[in-house]
Amino acid sequence: MNTYGKNFRFSIFGESHGYCIGCTIDGLPAGFAPDFDFVSRELKRRSPGAYIGSTSRRERDEYKVISGMYNGRTTGMPLTVIFPNNDVDSSPYINNIARPGHADFAAYRKYHGYNDPRGGGAFSGRLTAALVFAGAIAKQLLSKCGIEVISHVASIGNITDSKFDPVMKEIPDLDPAFPLVDNSLRSEFDAMLTSVREARDSIGGTVEAAAVNIPVGVGEPYFRGFESCLASILYSIPGVHGVEFGAGFAFSGMRGSEANDQYLYGGNTSTNNSGGINGGISNGMPIIFRVAFRPVPTVFTEQSMLDLETSEPILAAAKGRHDACILPRGCVIVECATAICIYDLLLQTKLN
Amino acid sequence: MNTYGKNFRFSIFGESHGYCIGCTIDGLPAGFAPDFDFVSRELKRRSPGAYIGSTSRRERDEYKVISGMYNGRTTGMPLTVIFPNNDVDSSPYINNIARPGHADFAAYRKYHGYNDPRGGGAFSGRLTAALVFAGAIAKQLLSKCGIEVISHVASIGNITDSKFDPVMKEIPDLDPAFPLVDNSLRSEFDAMLTSVREARDSIGGTVEAAAVNIPVGVGEPYFRGFESCLASILYSIPGVHGVEFGAGFAFSGMRGSEANDQYLYGGNTSTNNSGGINGGISNGMPIIFRVAFRPVPTVFTEQSMLDLETSEPILAAAKGRHDACILPRGCVIVECATAICIYDLLLQTKLN
Amino acid sequence: MNTYGKNFRFSIFGESHGYCIGCTIDGLPAGFAPDFDFVSRELKRRSPGAYIGSTSRRERDEYKVISGMYNGRTTGMPLTVIFPNNDVDSSPYINNIARPGHADFAAYRKYHGYNDPRGGGAFSGRLTAALVFAGAIAKQLLSKCGIEVISHVASIGNITDSKFDPVMKEIPDLDPAFPLVDNSLRSEFDAMLTSVREARDSIGGTVEAAAVNIPVGVGEPYFRGFESCLASILYSIPGVHGVEFGAGFAFSGMRGSEANDQYLYGGNTSTNNSGGINGGISNGMPIIFRVAFRPVPTVFTEQSMLDLETSEPILAAAKGRHDACILPRGCVIVECATAICIYDLLLQTKLN
Amino acid sequence: MNTYGKNFRFSIFGESHGYCIGCTIDGLPAGFAPDFDFVSRELKRRSPGAYIGSTSRRERDEYKVISGMYNGRTTGMPLTVIFPNNDVDSSPYINNIARPGHADFAAYRKYHGYNDPRGGGAFSGRLTAALVFAGAIAKQLLSKCGIEVISHVASIGNITDSKFDPVMKEIPDLDPAFPLVDNSLRSEFDAMLTSVREARDSIGGTVEAAAVNIPVGVGEPYFRGFESCLASILYSIPGVHGVEFGAGFAFSGMRGSEANDQYLYGGNTSTNNSGGINGGISNGMPIIFRVAFRPVPTVFTEQSMLDLETSEPILAAAKGRHDACILPRGCVIVECATAICIYDLLLQTKLN
Repeated sequence: MNTYGKNFRFSIFGESHGYCIGCTIDGLPAGFAPDFDFVSRELKRRSPGAYIGSTSRRERDEYKVISGMYNGRTTGMPLTVIFPNNDVDSSPYINNIARPGHADFAAYRKYHGYNDPRGGGAFSGRLTAALVFAGAIAKQLLSKCGIEVISHVASIGNITDSKFDPVMKEIPDLDPAFPLVDNSLRSEFDAMLTSVREARDSIGGTVEAAAVNIPVGVGEPYFRGFESCLASILYSIPGVHGVEFGAGFAFSGMRGSEANDQYLYGGNTSTNNSGGINGGISNGMPIIFRVAFRPVPTVFTEQSMLDLETSEPILAAAKGRHDACILPRGCVIVECATAICIYDLLLQTKLN
Repeated sequence: MNTYGKNFRFSIFGESHGYCIGCTIDGLPAGFAPDFDFVSRELKRRSPGAYIGSTSRRERDEYKVISGMYNGRTTGMPLTVIFPNNDVDSSPYINNIARPGHADFAAYRKYHGYNDPRGGGAFSGRLTAALVFAGAIAKQLLSKCGIEVISHVASIGNITDSKFDPVMKEIPDLDPAFPLVDNSLRSEFDAMLTSVREARDSIGGTVEAAAVNIPVGVGEPYFRGFESCLASILYSIPGVHGVEFGAGFAFSGMRGSEANDQYLYGGNTSTNNSGGINGGISNGMPIIFRVAFRPVPTVFTEQSMLDLETSEPILAAAKGRHDACILPRGCVIVECATAICIYDLLLQTKLN
Repeated sequence: MNTYGKNFRFSIFGESHGYCIGCTIDGLPAGFAPDFDFVSRELKRRSPGAYIGSTSRRERDEYKVISGMYNGRTTGMPLTVIFPNNDVDSSPYINNIARPGHADFAAYRKYHGYNDPRGGGAFSGRLTAALVFAGAIAKQLLSKCGIEVISHVASIGNITDSKFDPVMKEIPDLDPAFPLVDNSLRSEFDAMLTSVREARDSIGGTVEAAAVNIPVGVGEPYFRGFESCLASILYSIPGVHGVEFGAGFAFSGMRGSEANDQYLYGGNTSTNNSGGINGGISNGMPIIFRVAFRPVPTVFTEQSMLDLETSEPILAAAKGRHDACILPRGCVIVECATAICIYDLLLQTKLN
Repeated sequence: MNTYGKNFRFSIFGESHGYCIGCTIDGLPAGFAPDFDFVSRELKRRSPGAYIGSTSRRERDEYKVISGMYNGRTTGMPLTVIFPNNDVDSSPYINNIARPGHADFAAYRKYHGYNDPRGGGAFSGRLTAALVFAGAIAKQLLSKCGIEVISHVASIGNITDSKFDPVMKEIPDLDPAFPLVDNSLRSEFDAMLTSVREARDSIGGTVEAAAVNIPVGVGEPYFRGFESCLASILYSIPGVHGVEFGAGFAFSGMRGSEANDQYLYGGNTSTNNSGGINGGISNGMPIIFRVAFRPVPTVFTEQSMLDLETSEPILAAAKGRHDACILPRGCVIVECATAICIYDLLLQTKLN
């Protein structure tokens, strides 16, 4: 099931070390002229190599739109884009060894050994280039409705950025490359990433994201609620292991009298513990949520891997090229997944 | 979009104070003889009134299967069940006042004032009776494959139960009514619930759940990954604001070298930080996850509500009948949502 | 898969001799006040007993809306309706004998003998009551947009009504009970039906239907084209074995120079061989199509049935109560299926 | 909605004169080694130029599989294939003139003039190359189950081939290039096509197709019935205006006593008027159906076209390159659409 969405349908394909990765977007309005410079800037935010601790794989993320465009505008037909894989070095992978924390073992068993193991195949973070492409398109369509999706590095290891103001009276100005609410913490984050990389290790982190200017009424009842749809696509991002909305897990320690957001005139609330959503439907406050990323599983210290043929564990250190931390790269991925989800839900509200 | 699932399709309908709530289950195998005593026991775990602090609404959760059964067995056709609403008192609701933390305001706007506001209408926790019915059926179908779904009250407010053993060598014996890993904490939990109820307040909590004996290979790549599907249905449960798998948010503070689960002979791992899932696919270890519930938003102290006609805030205390805490009732709801999800995914693996 | 439609989702359930049949409609706008008198009139058109040769089963088609309505208006939530089965006589059915032309044998094998065989179970024409209910709702929603769906008995056996004028400058006035373009043929049709019934036989026929005032642009490219969607639901009507649009099969004998509809000023065409659809998209001309019904398979003469347990053929005459011809009852069923399809497609065009 | 199918999902993209056309197939089993020679032979049957009266466009139908294959076998991940467009001459098209019988006008209006009009854009028969690719894969997967899908040219204009034997005791040997049951008619067909081409006209025709060795039980009740699913994809083929199963429209003139297929020992029937399907479910007899194609709308005589900007009709003759008759090319397209449908339904029966 390689398709996400109901009205704005995003279908992904490709493998990390195959010919290409790509996606098809079905449900674009006709006559829309995408700003591909913006798309490229978003892809650059995702691209490895810009930050301390990021992988040395140098994908230039060059892409080709192969359908759905005519004279610089969308035709209303499915838009397909491909990202040829160019800087591919499969040598560290083809060895029937499952790396801890990766899909190698589960995929090998599920696909009876026929999955493409090189670079994680279809399970590689490389696929998120397609997600960012589609999300950068969705962001532009949302922007026409005044909606913006932003995020920041909420934490890496034990270093924690300030939180977004939950009622977000002003949209903060964020460095696209390393978005932080409190920019003074940047050097601390850099030092952390340097030390992790030097230790040949990796580290986890969290992203806090927000969607602002969402009108009241977006999200459907029951199984197409805002959180359901958003969590669904967020959990398709490699490495995501936690998603919480508004006060999230902190709610579990609160009393109702303090947790409830009190109404102001017009329907806004003075606080935003609900994260902008009640009953699966947007309530007009900013949508606020946090996403937890596990440490990149590939580390260069010895670990107990699995020989897929003999089922024997094997002590070995990973090779290949990998990030020490998925952040800040993960920010744009979270934003783009969010934009895809919200644009899809927004279309549905036209039917209300 | 009132349907969840692809091959085991669960469609819900009804309103809290209307004629009934109910659901249709499409995709049941023919010839299955459900154990309705088990269904009733599961419904009882969900039913209000059994615990300190639970609502005084006394729904007996009597249901009638109106299609899809013949001679005590499923026919292979859609099974529809209805739960007539009997103990209904709508008087506290019909007043065009939106309660903080509820869907009242968002639904009023989305549906132009035509939604059924009584008892929260379609957004009521009452609907979870249908979820538990379907889940209790799914649990039986899973049980035939050796799969069990269990959960416990991981926390209420600041009282915390011990965690499940992540590798779960033995399935713990849990009190269905108030499942705790450490039963000695029961009196502490009871005292907490009593004090909250006396304060006319409510309180949040977390559920930790596990699915054991899941074979390797359940869950699809990309957008039908195990976490995506499971989070999607969990977030349809009223009050859920956080979902994390395995180490979840704790991953964000870890290094890869400590986070990775090391392989043992055969493919199991010595730890289970991944929560039994890699790349969206089950890896043979127990599926472990936690769900955060907000405090029940209806509290009986004064709060700033919203007059839906004038958009003016109004200081008032809630009336009606409500839980002080959704737990332990939420445990069976989480388990049943999980069983629905897993059975649906399990069917799909027949196609691999 | 008991659901039809994407945005206007119609899900059916029930068995002919079970407790009830019914359906859930998801995707209704909130605040719509259905005219249930109209619904009843449409159901009456479907109900047996009104015509020569129709079955003596006297279902009063009484129904109960059990969700999705509040104060006489739709709530925007799924509307579920049930039709309790009352005039049930299962005695002729429960005998493990498959009747020729029925689903008995295929269903028995598919469901390993667990399907409900009484009255054809889920394969009974009884289920079309739910289709007519939903269609009568859809017709009202279409009517607000000026769209009407009409049909007539195009033929029964070798008796043939005049055809609709394909460009349909005026909407013909049709007798709802026995719609004919040429009412003077009514007595011929009646005589035919009488003779067939007297012969204890049955007979086939065709319905010609039209949808008028469809705006240009309804229908999606590729797999959600107008014909694809319409044929899909029409073929779910028991007994339908042929569907053709516009000139249909007659096209196969034509040359392009005569077949093509020539443009007039504005985009209308002087002829309508295309049946109002090009490339799966409505072109502003009336949608015209024909549906072929097989003779009702249950006849009261001796036939070779199948003993499902021994696989032996058995010479026997059918019992039970059945129509001699599905027409004119089939007209309202075709219209209602069409209305469901078109309203679903029409919603989608809001997203163009 | 560019996707067909539930478990075997076929998604199409591309425009006739854009960079390429292509498709993504999701739901392939892992480890399958397609016979690409067979794929090429099927594509050759679809390719223009081989027959009298076929278009002079010389697409070599060269394709590139860009995902989902590894070491010559499917990986279980989505397989994407592209067919670059090479022999493109857009000069006859870019003129804002809608051709009679084409989607030009409806698409122009639906997409506000932004659709790609060149060569019919996404509405071109060129897209069927992707359908044939996917169908040739599906045929191989069906063949492993003993299932074959065949067809023949049942008629072109008023020339009619013999029909398939409905019970099809033997699978007839058919010329892939111009399949006829009665090969002696070939010269008559050729003469007809020659005369039509010389008249600068086009002509319609019908295809009769069959699927043999389908086990009992394929097809789902209600809206995923065999006919519903098959008609749905057949109507997505450009030019199809009629689909009938078994006796089809001829049923409408028959009595039940002659129409019903009488059971033989074991469950087969002595005749096959039902076309192998009862209640939407295969009954073990061959699936038999006929498909009517309109004459190719582009003819080289003067016709009333429409100026899309002024809405004025314009008398002009078409240019470009076109078939005089879609047959026999349409045979392989019908077969391949059928194979896609059946393989998708067959997967579903694994869940029964």
